[in-house]
Amino acid sequence: MSVLVVGSVALDSVQTPFGRHKDLLGGSATYFSIAASYFTDVRLVAVIGRDFPKRYIRLFKKYRIDTRGLEIKDGKTFRWEGEYEYDMNTAKTVATHLNVLGKFRPKIPKEYRKTKHVFLANIDPDLQKSILRQISSPQFIACDTMNFWIENKKRSLIGLLKEMDLCLLNDAEARELSGEANLLKAAKVIISLGPRMVIIKKGEHGCLFVSKRRCFTVPGFPLETIHDPTGAGDTFAGGLMGYLGRFDKVDESKVKKAIIYGSVLASYNVEKFSLKKLLRLNRRLIDKRYKEFKKLTHF
Amino acid sequence: MSVLVVGSVALDSVQTPFGRHKDLLGGSATYFSIAASYFTDVRLVAVIGRDFPKRYIRLFKKYRIDTRGLEIKDGKTFRWEGEYEYDMNTAKTVATHLNVLGKFRPKIPKEYRKTKHVFLANIDPDLQKSILRQISSPQFIACDTMNFWIENKKRSLIGLLKEMDLCLLNDAEARELSGEANLLKAAKVIISLGPRMVIIKKGEHGCLFVSKRRCFTVPGFPLETIHDPTGAGDTFAGGLMGYLGRFDKVDESKVKKAIIYGSVLASYNVEKFSLKKLLRLNRRLIDKRYKEFKKLTHF
Repeated sequence: MSVLVVGSVALDSVQTPFGRHKDLLGGSATYFSIAASYFTDVRLVAVIGRDFPKRYIRLFKKYRIDTRGLEIKDGKTFRWEGEYEYDMNTAKTVATHLNVLGKFRPKIPKEYRKTKHVFLANIDPDLQKSILRQISSPQFIACDTMNFWIENKKRSLIGLLKEMDLCLLNDAEARELSGEANLLKAAKVIISLGPRMVIIKKGEHGCLFVSKRRCFTVPGFPLETIHDPTGAGDTFAGGLMGYLGRFDKVDESKVKKAIIYGSVLASYNVEKFSLKKLLRLNRRLIDKRYKEFKKLTHF
Repeated sequence: MSVLVVGSVALDSVQTPFGRHKDLLGGSATYFSIAASYFTDVRLVAVIGRDFPKRYIRLFKKYRIDTRGLEIKDGKTFRWEGEYEYDMNTAKTVATHLNVLGKFRPKIPKEYRKTKHVFLANIDPDLQKSILRQISSPQFIACDTMNFWIENKKRSLIGLLKEMDLCLLNDAEARELSGEANLLKAAKVIISLGPRMVIIKKGEHGCLFVSKRRCFTVPGFPLETIHDPTGAGDTFAGGLMGYLGRFDKVDESKVKKAIIYGSVLASYNVEKFSLKKLLRLNRRLIDKRYKEFKKLTHF
């Protein structure tokens, strides 16, 4: 089994109270792919420029990530520059250079077209839709989005949501999309727009899962060390979709477990800069924290 | 078995986006007592003025709350006036009139002196200490506090903490008392000051329990309706201590269950103004939401 992801591969410059680093490997599809690779095969669709370090491509391959969908274009790789203060729940974007991402028209390689599990990371909802048209019979489709698309392409986004099994977004985005301040109400409004399930991510406060029949709430894994929250949401999605990618049929009890795996991966990820921690995990460490999560929350 | 509480009985004027009410029954010991009364007998120690409506005293009695420790003094009852905006996590205090509470010197009636479970709600830490001196052999003692005492009576407060089994405080208070922004680190610093256990309350985001050997984290119960968060922390403490009040020996697995009962009571309480909802509960409704809590969080 495998999971397909379409999103960004980037070079990030990040400053937090714990350090400052330039041109780190980043991007939604990167975090997603590495996290998902601990559970299943990953098929990556993204675009990079000629300046993208070859060693990062080798890195993807080392994690058995299929890079046949990774286009190399003339120009520079997408760059994001951000800062975090002590309240690490919100990033301040200092600069965004779209570069080759600006003209990205994702093409799904022939070999990927029968993938059953698909994750559409945060990009233009029109592009997200165009990807779906290229996949023959997807069985479980999830998407992420951001405030920019809610504000500027709401109609396209709502059209997309009708085709989703699962929509992931953060608390501020859920409030903006639904027009509801209360998150449970917001989730129900989003469900009424089409997706079978919604997950509202609340940063260090965990997340809220809502479907037509069920609600499930997960606290954040308590951590003493948080050095860089960049990519936490995409890592969460990678752990979640990677775990689900192992099953032909996805039911809600599997999604609950997948949410915990996503939370485990995200909690590891924020402990060090960029992908430093994520790259050093293994299934033993992942399952250890999964068990800790149970001890921490069951009564 | 029974639990003793020392704290305030007040008349509150509260404004939220959902309404405005004057001279409502309030106060930390009030919320605590009603919540705890669903589990065990409650012994109340507080002070009121001659203006305190008799019907509220009858109300306490109806809930089998022992009011022999409720002093009636010449003067007016303590009054608190507060406002909440849409972000209901923080109250804005508009006015505080201490009135008879200003000269409160709690005297524990002879009949209360052998109580095993004691809750010292948020009052001057010197008074909290003076209460302990009047109890012969308490077995489980918990306290709450607030920023004012952390800023103005830190030494007394730290002295008190050494004698506590459990210290309850909110996230901002935990950060202020410990000097640590990270809540897990803050909890550990507080544990190092003396109490066996600490619970950091995070409003709608639930709470974090830490002891020397264990950590336990609970999300807030997802609610669509939040009309008045006044008293949520004291209701939480009442549910928690009320449940524990049924046991001779308190161990950490009982505290975990007690935290859920506390969360259940608090979640009901915020659904209506003042004590309106809290007064209409019963064990069936409480156990129903307890079970829902399990469904919402177990995986």
